[in-house]
Amino acid sequence: MAESAMNHEEKLDKLAEVAVRVGLGLAHGQQLVMTAPLEAVPLVRRITEHAYKAGASLVTTIFGDEQSTLMRFQHGADDSFDTASKWLYDGMAEAFRGGAARLAIAGEDPNLLAGQDPARVARANRARSQAYLPALELISGFDINWTICSFASSAWARAVFPNVSEEQAVAKLWDAIFAASRVDRPDPVAAWGEHNAELRARYSMLNAKQYSALHFRGPGTDLKVGLADDHEWAGGATKAKNGVVCNPNIPSEEVFTTPHRARVEGTVTSTKPLSYQGTLIQDIAVRFEGGQIAEARARTGQDVLQKVLETDEGARRLGEVALVPHSSPISASGLLFYNTLFDENASHHIALGQAYAKCVRGGLSMTEAELEQKGANRSLIHIDWMIGSDKVDVDGVNADGSAEPLMRGGEWVTKAA
Amino acid sequence: MAESAMNHEEKLDKLAEVAVRVGLGLAHGQQLVMTAPLEAVPLVRRITEHAYKAGASLVTTIFGDEQSTLMRFQHGADDSFDTASKWLYDGMAEAFRGGAARLAIAGEDPNLLAGQDPARVARANRARSQAYLPALELISGFDINWTICSFASSAWARAVFPNVSEEQAVAKLWDAIFAASRVDRPDPVAAWGEHNAELRARYSMLNAKQYSALHFRGPGTDLKVGLADDHEWAGGATKAKNGVVCNPNIPSEEVFTTPHRARVEGTVTSTKPLSYQGTLIQDIAVRFEGGQIAEARARTGQDVLQKVLETDEGARRLGEVALVPHSSPISASGLLFYNTLFDENASHHIALGQAYAKCVRGGLSMTEAELEQKGANRSLIHIDWMIGSDKVDVDGVNADGSAEPLMRGGEWVTKAA
Repeated sequence: MAESAMNHEEKLDKLAEVAVRVGLGLAHGQQLVMTAPLEAVPLVRRITEHAYKAGASLVTTIFGDEQSTLMRFQHGADDSFDTASKWLYDGMAEAFRGGAARLAIAGEDPNLLAGQDPARVARANRARSQAYLPALELISGFDINWTICSFASSAWARAVFPNVSEEQAVAKLWDAIFAASRVDRPDPVAAWGEHNAELRARYSMLNAKQYSALHFRGPGTDLKVGLADDHEWAGGATKAKNGVVCNPNIPSEEVFTTPHRARVEGTVTSTKPLSYQGTLIQDIAVRFEGGQIAEARARTGQDVLQKVLETDEGARRLGEVALVPHSSPISASGLLFYNTLFDENASHHIALGQAYAKCVRGGLSMTEAELEQKGANRSLIHIDWMIGSDKVDVDGVNADGSAEPLMRGGEWVTKAA
Repeated sequence: MAESAMNHEEKLDKLAEVAVRVGLGLAHGQQLVMTAPLEAVPLVRRITEHAYKAGASLVTTIFGDEQSTLMRFQHGADDSFDTASKWLYDGMAEAFRGGAARLAIAGEDPNLLAGQDPARVARANRARSQAYLPALELISGFDINWTICSFASSAWARAVFPNVSEEQAVAKLWDAIFAASRVDRPDPVAAWGEHNAELRARYSMLNAKQYSALHFRGPGTDLKVGLADDHEWAGGATKAKNGVVCNPNIPSEEVFTTPHRARVEGTVTSTKPLSYQGTLIQDIAVRFEGGQIAEARARTGQDVLQKVLETDEGARRLGEVALVPHSSPISASGLLFYNTLFDENASHHIALGQAYAKCVRGGLSMTEAELEQKGANRSLIHIDWMIGSDKVDVDGVNADGSAEPLMRGGEWVTKAA
């Protein structure tokens, strides 16, 4: 089918096919546990159809309703905000232990909770994070194949395109999602195959180098991010412990690894706003000492940022560092998506909180204590924020302290092999 | 507010208020687990609001999508139909053990699975019933407060009113739901208080009588339903084990008790069609011997009926017998709702399968073995079907074999005290 011949419904169907075949790599007989905003029903149904065609034994979708979430903040008793649906998350963890795959459709209103009491928002998030942890560990530990893809909800579209009609905004956001997810290509599944091969060449080079640190320099940034011992770079396709190859993020442009929790030094300034649970945190400026945030400021959302940093001890340390060329398709769109899945793929980024065990060699079979010994951080949170631009340079620092240029002006110095 | 002044939105809000205050009697600090069809979002949101106002600590809604259900039958592999989302039902059971209340919104398309392979439908239902059993036992055992109310979905409305436009059908079905649920009254909560008092007077009289059997006589029916030892009649409001008074069905017109699993004799003919999981089972004619169905026929849906009876040993025995005057509001509407919640409240009915422990004196604290000794039946299913009309008479049979007239021409012989 020629690109121009595809209408919206066909592209939506291609996105569903990419989510099931590339994102999940769903195996015959697997259950699928899907989470989605209510508005995403048309995509949910297409994914459900592709999942059954791929041999799913059962597809169960847990829909979220943002209006109902908001009602809690409007009408709920103050003593209610430390409660989470632990029974549901424990059920999901049980599904994963039983072999179910996991698909999340993102499309949240980035401003949903903007007007609500930050203390209540933080309490609700903390309760939710604690309740979700057992399920999240099975996901981030790749016990199962999983993926996240996106739906252009109207509230999200209005935030990204505030100056056009809602209908136009939704159409524009869909164009951006389809392009970034490579479903506007004649053969999206093949396009993902090529893309995965490029990412593989890049992270293989970095794994061969085994730098002891990355050095970021740019406006307001002079940051040395020590890497975990035996760190492993990853990107694109991942083989889960159940043997299934999945692409956990649709889209994905990054290669990423695990920093050393105690070896981050210097200052760093965010280059894009962070949309966190309905609050926009802009112009974050942070100073690290011994791996820990010693000072943190933000032009907007500072109170929310402070609450985040108080979540637990690991919330002040890094769990991920990722490199993304400035010329990547999402960056080239020039858009700010107010959604981590997209914005992190337009820019280098670091994440506060939980590290990925798979980014330590042999990490998926290690205990928490063993991972910590390698330098991997542990926390209830994992929050990515963007620190790259065409003005940020990156050096790879060797164990002997010598540095070599890795990225200049936002681009790789060497071509992928 | 005068009745005529209430518009649709106001009535929907009253229905939500009745569901939370009368149906659930929701207590401050309780979680609420709601299940609902996707189309019921407007009612879900109003119930969510009333629940938070009543002090709910968290409202979690599990939405069901009939289109997704159908896709499984259209595209799923044959080996998939014995799978159920046990992880989700176990999670719900865990929520109930933790004190959560339960609300179900009914509104299914009665014909959804009509065109599908009955063997696959039966396999999927059986798997679901088995997975749901631990949660269902906590509900039917009244460990928690729970209720079912209704939403006028378009597919359901088309089935009830096939000869008008969909818009008219939905409006008519809403009128019927609002009337039956008493939310068209000036003070619906007070109206439920009066109704509950009447039902209480009726079941108190029957409890004082302690009949050994009920004798139903009418066209195609001559059936003696022995009652369980120490059976207890119930109806309307119920005090759950957690101390909360709830109305498990909105609407509800019945008084009901537990038959003796081994003491049902004779023949009975259904007086209304039974809509079971998308199939219409009409003109059921059954002969009981020693409490067990010895012969069963149906004019339509006989293959589905046979599959139901093969579910387990208890599926061929009775778990409930209920009396409903022919003049009750739902019967007076003259409508066939293709939905048990409504149709059972227009007519005497019996249920195949699981008995209610609360309908045996002290039953909620008894073991399964103790309940069985009293004559209470046990099964994966509980399926009500209608056996009453203005042509069916009912006698109460005393232990000495003497009979006294209880209902004639569909009405109680004596007034409620």
